[in-house]
Amino acid sequence: MKNSAMVMQIQDPASQRLTWYKPPLTVLVIKKVSDASVLAPFVQLVDWLLQEKNMVVWVESAVLEDVHLNEEVKFKAIREKLVTFKDGRDDLTDRIDFIVCLGGDGTLLYASQLFQQSVPPVMAFHLGSLGFLTPFRFDNFEEQLTSVLEGHAALTLRSRLRCVTHRKGEKRQEAKVDANADARPAANSILVLNEVVIDRGPSPYLSNIDLFLDGKYITSVQGDGLIVSTPTGSTAYAAAAGASMIHPSVPAIMVTPICPHSLSFRPIVVPAGVELKVSVSPESRNTSWVSFDGRNRQELFHGDSLRVTTSIYPVPCICAQDQISDWFASLADGLHWNVRKRQKCLDELSDLTASGSEDTLDEMENLKLYDI
Amino acid sequence: MKNSAMVMQIQDPASQRLTWYKPPLTVLVIKKVSDASVLAPFVQLVDWLLQEKNMVVWVESAVLEDVHLNEEVKFKAIREKLVTFKDGRDDLTDRIDFIVCLGGDGTLLYASQLFQQSVPPVMAFHLGSLGFLTPFRFDNFEEQLTSVLEGHAALTLRSRLRCVTHRKGEKRQEAKVDANADARPAANSILVLNEVVIDRGPSPYLSNIDLFLDGKYITSVQGDGLIVSTPTGSTAYAAAAGASMIHPSVPAIMVTPICPHSLSFRPIVVPAGVELKVSVSPESRNTSWVSFDGRNRQELFHGDSLRVTTSIYPVPCICAQDQISDWFASLADGLHWNVRKRQKCLDELSDLTASGSEDTLDEMENLKLYDI
Amino acid sequence: MKNSAMVMQIQDPASQRLTWYKPPLTVLVIKKVSDASVLAPFVQLVDWLLQEKNMVVWVESAVLEDVHLNEEVKFKAIREKLVTFKDGRDDLTDRIDFIVCLGGDGTLLYASQLFQQSVPPVMAFHLGSLGFLTPFRFDNFEEQLTSVLEGHAALTLRSRLRCVTHRKGEKRQEAKVDANADARPAANSILVLNEVVIDRGPSPYLSNIDLFLDGKYITSVQGDGLIVSTPTGSTAYAAAAGASMIHPSVPAIMVTPICPHSLSFRPIVVPAGVELKVSVSPESRNTSWVSFDGRNRQELFHGDSLRVTTSIYPVPCICAQDQISDWFASLADGLHWNVRKRQKCLDELSDLTASGSEDTLDEMENLKLYDI
Amino acid sequence: MKNSAMVMQIQDPASQRLTWYKPPLTVLVIKKVSDASVLAPFVQLVDWLLQEKNMVVWVESAVLEDVHLNEEVKFKAIREKLVTFKDGRDDLTDRIDFIVCLGGDGTLLYASQLFQQSVPPVMAFHLGSLGFLTPFRFDNFEEQLTSVLEGHAALTLRSRLRCVTHRKGEKRQEAKVDANADARPAANSILVLNEVVIDRGPSPYLSNIDLFLDGKYITSVQGDGLIVSTPTGSTAYAAAAGASMIHPSVPAIMVTPICPHSLSFRPIVVPAGVELKVSVSPESRNTSWVSFDGRNRQELFHGDSLRVTTSIYPVPCICAQDQISDWFASLADGLHWNVRKRQKCLDELSDLTASGSEDTLDEMENLKLYDI
Repeated sequence: MKNSAMVMQIQDPASQRLTWYKPPLTVLVIKKVSDASVLAPFVQLVDWLLQEKNMVVWVESAVLEDVHLNEEVKFKAIREKLVTFKDGRDDLTDRIDFIVCLGGDGTLLYASQLFQQSVPPVMAFHLGSLGFLTPFRFDNFEEQLTSVLEGHAALTLRSRLRCVTHRKGEKRQEAKVDANADARPAANSILVLNEVVIDRGPSPYLSNIDLFLDGKYITSVQGDGLIVSTPTGSTAYAAAAGASMIHPSVPAIMVTPICPHSLSFRPIVVPAGVELKVSVSPESRNTSWVSFDGRNRQELFHGDSLRVTTSIYPVPCICAQDQISDWFASLADGLHWNVRKRQKCLDELSDLTASGSEDTLDEMENLKLYDI
Repeated sequence: MKNSAMVMQIQDPASQRLTWYKPPLTVLVIKKVSDASVLAPFVQLVDWLLQEKNMVVWVESAVLEDVHLNEEVKFKAIREKLVTFKDGRDDLTDRIDFIVCLGGDGTLLYASQLFQQSVPPVMAFHLGSLGFLTPFRFDNFEEQLTSVLEGHAALTLRSRLRCVTHRKGEKRQEAKVDANADARPAANSILVLNEVVIDRGPSPYLSNIDLFLDGKYITSVQGDGLIVSTPTGSTAYAAAAGASMIHPSVPAIMVTPICPHSLSFRPIVVPAGVELKVSVSPESRNTSWVSFDGRNRQELFHGDSLRVTTSIYPVPCICAQDQISDWFASLADGLHWNVRKRQKCLDELSDLTASGSEDTLDEMENLKLYDI
Repeated sequence: MKNSAMVMQIQDPASQRLTWYKPPLTVLVIKKVSDASVLAPFVQLVDWLLQEKNMVVWVESAVLEDVHLNEEVKFKAIREKLVTFKDGRDDLTDRIDFIVCLGGDGTLLYASQLFQQSVPPVMAFHLGSLGFLTPFRFDNFEEQLTSVLEGHAALTLRSRLRCVTHRKGEKRQEAKVDANADARPAANSILVLNEVVIDRGPSPYLSNIDLFLDGKYITSVQGDGLIVSTPTGSTAYAAAAGASMIHPSVPAIMVTPICPHSLSFRPIVVPAGVELKVSVSPESRNTSWVSFDGRNRQELFHGDSLRVTTSIYPVPCICAQDQISDWFASLADGLHWNVRKRQKCLDELSDLTASGSEDTLDEMENLKLYDI
Repeated sequence: MKNSAMVMQIQDPASQRLTWYKPPLTVLVIKKVSDASVLAPFVQLVDWLLQEKNMVVWVESAVLEDVHLNEEVKFKAIREKLVTFKDGRDDLTDRIDFIVCLGGDGTLLYASQLFQQSVPPVMAFHLGSLGFLTPFRFDNFEEQLTSVLEGHAALTLRSRLRCVTHRKGEKRQEAKVDANADARPAANSILVLNEVVIDRGPSPYLSNIDLFLDGKYITSVQGDGLIVSTPTGSTAYAAAAGASMIHPSVPAIMVTPICPHSLSFRPIVVPAGVELKVSVSPESRNTSWVSFDGRNRQELFHGDSLRVTTSIYPVPCICAQDQISDWFASLADGLHWNVRKRQKCLDELSDLTASGSEDTLDEMENLKLYDI
């Protein structure tokens, strides 16, 4: 009887947990390349997955060519047990149950790129310092992996942005990109986990970029460029450009100008369901350049446009603790968020009885807090 | 077969539209007080609702006492046709189908406060300049109201925050506040549409505030205070404190420090589903003060805590155009967002052939753009 | 008897005024190129200077080749009366008493570049909208010029930065650059009126730049780059990068990071008397690029360094009103500084007697201010 | 012959050094109160000054009453050798050659307040962590004091702001405040070393403050308030409000809004020589409150005004190293300025030969930098 619109569904982030519909059999292991420190852990991990868990282990074929790796005695023993694929040639869709990343945040960007549609759950280990996308420590990897394989884990679904470039003159369906594009990804579509950046490239002149939402003209960016990022990307380049940080579970898209000439061009956060369109302003004297998660840099000419929507296929990232703790740990560790000099503790300050006057040195000591 | 977690539901804001399960019969009209300019439109509107739409019109009883209003001849005629209620005494739950606000954003804050649980759809007219919460112009109110009553309208569901203060020693259920609190609102719970602010009040010393999320300690705020706001509130006080602006449809809570002493304390955006807890740090030498949508100012003592969750009962605001256009119109009008001097148009700049040298005045003219 | 250090000299900006030691005879007129709208005023101005003031008028030789200009009948008449020089070939030092700029801020950047040492007073007219460096309106140029030529004018001395690039291996005097460099400018020294920018250029990777002050290592910039600007430049690119705006009379150098990865890298302002040194960090994986007032873009390799000091030769800019009024006018016009929606005026808000309750709609109306 | 205006005097901060015109005989020792940890060092220091340097040691009379201090055996021995004065009653002008501060930044605020005109050189020791105003470590105080007393020290002259409040109706000389006020300080004038703050006090409504420079109306502040600070104060409250940090030697005044409602109200830096006037806007519905270095809080009513100018009497602070090193040390220590996660070192990143493809994981690893 009551208008349904009057009650909201509010999802508790703690409710998002990993569930295996069938025990995972095939695991894809992605390791950071050209980093010697990752080789031993990689062999150790793969060996354990094969021996202890009897899983089918996939690796990128290039890995088998790694010279340093082949010097590892232990690796020779397991080398032929590995199933390989060639990035860009073999389709992994529905062939992988589980992904383990070993190294840095880049390994996750890579995993994301391998799966244009549904992505298996990803468990990411950092070897050096904690990364934004690699919450797990490697030392006791056996226990941690075992409990995850048993399904005890919180998940963070990291949304991705589907970016489609339309060249001038090229005709296309006016329908929103995501729906059908996600069904059968357009050849010219690229998924980003962090952000797509539109900037002035090598040009010394400002770029002028027009921004549209759901087909409506919103504003023009006059400055170094524009960042369209996921919540995950809000702690990457967007943070450097002054954006607020958004938890990866928030269904939103962040729009951040790069060195805008307007003092009032504050970054904005829009619902995940909108379609953004970016194009070079007709009156702009130079073109713009686009890059996707920092790659695939290409020029955007007058008349071209870039369409950005949230993909329905997120990257399901397994949490070391939970969505909240993992995120704040990465903010503190990666960005030193709110790191500051602690104020003097209470007892040192409490004794204000020495003098009644409002002007005593005593009082001032406490005002010293202003300088900390 | 595929893990359900691997596909996200992404809601298209355009899909949120007003639906009447039964034709609206009772309408509550809220008008700005102590503003002479609102009287004539108010009478005009109420008369039209009574005569043309045969609706039952409710008003706050205080309205009938308005001296200036009673001087209006036309009002005398309709005065006794109005149904009145006393704010704070009469319960409006399930007795109102529809709300019309006349005046400023304050009328919406008031409407929100009248309904602690489900809120009827609100159609808000601004009389002076466009407000953040009052998108409709009054001049052709008949056509606009008619089309809304026929169900042709987009909706923005503005989430509210339920704030519950727990005093030291006072015992309470550890369960998350929202669920049960929403069912039967605690006596000490307050709903805010914009923000709850915790600050140092009249004290000249810094406040030290501890912030917890879902029971976990996150960080301490050392500064003038902390703003916990809805997306709606992100364009209010939070914007003044440096936050990015968030579209009201994004299910999130914004946490913004007020003049924090840490250079790295950037505002953050967390999922709507978390529970925030704020309390005075044990080592803090002074207490804090809390205010709700700028009101009900009260002191927060050591040991007290404030719990904030997203209410399941939003304020359904009817859009003049749609969710996107209305919001950007209010950003431009209310905050002059990205208002800037336009760059010189193309033809003025294009002629660069006058000289080939890289150092010509000609080149410099264009670099002038940097100074605009 | 008293320590001299204990009293400061504080200069009143109002005390800086134009003084002619001899009546100005030679005037250099600089006009914006490739802008048709400037031709008529240019001819009008030059003709007036020749006929009414009997001054010797200098122009850049390229001006005589301007096709559109030569179509102007009136110009033919004065064409041969003009003294010309070739930029880069003829030395203007001590040959010009006075400069008039016609067009945009770029004309001033050009004037600055023509004089590597002492610069004659500059009077700059804007034709379109007010510029940061062009305060005078053209319509009544005769009266304004006359009063300036009679010495009635306030001056703003805009400091310039002398930038010297040292290539790896190249040996140089360790002495501070400014003193002797200013005496006999090094071949590789460039003066900037706005800023020198060090950035990552076309590289997709971050630049890592080391910053030294007076020979001491201060910090490293990890991000898109670094801006070293004059107070004049603080309203240009530095403002876009988030810097506070500095009045051009303040003897200081502004250091502003471009999208730094540290949340705590706030821009800083250092005394005009220091020497800054910038170099590519040894561990940086890519080089950097330097540009001067947006021009002369060149690569900075590992081992190279850029030294920046304040030149003792400022650009003396004649004020339309005075140092303070001119600057704030340019902030308002060029950057819309503190442009905002005015709050409701008093009478509309004062009547709070309608109700005593703290919770009335009335009260809320006023809190509406929070949303404006 | 050349226009004098064409050459600037640029002061090298390194040139400001301590000079004794006569060997210092009288020393004022200021210690932090209600801090037990300062007692022992205080006695140690005073004893040494008396015995080793035969100096006349002054202390605030309240110090002799300090209970804990009187328990120190060693103190009893020197107690009667001390010269005392009563703050607010005895005039110290020209009776002190040298000041030593022991404790926190508050001791310097106190020292500043004792001397309304010329201030003796101040040497400040921190006992706990480094302060913004207390650069010296105490452990080897003998050597450090000896070298300072011999005149080997760099100085930072920290400018102060003279604030004069004019009440409505009260008549006053229209002349600029500083000159004559400094000569014979007005009864109602207060000197601040950090900042004067004008805010809305306990009022829930915005304050509206009008700002004038040299008698000209500049702008109105609508928000929580306004900070007028010295460069020294730019690292205190102004930094918390978003200002850029200014080196204390820069002759400037910083104007910083507190949570302004205009997105474009960026902080500004004006020359030290201007006079600022602040008053409550006529249309403002509530008054404002003023506080000086966080103290002497008083209400500013409609019609009242506050005038701020730079005093000609700075606080000469002795540097531990030099002006530049001391300042950056305090930025790093006090504000964690540009503290960040270091990027991976070169060797780890350099090997990009593993693959030629632009899309390899290898490439991505390096883009990981974006996330650090």
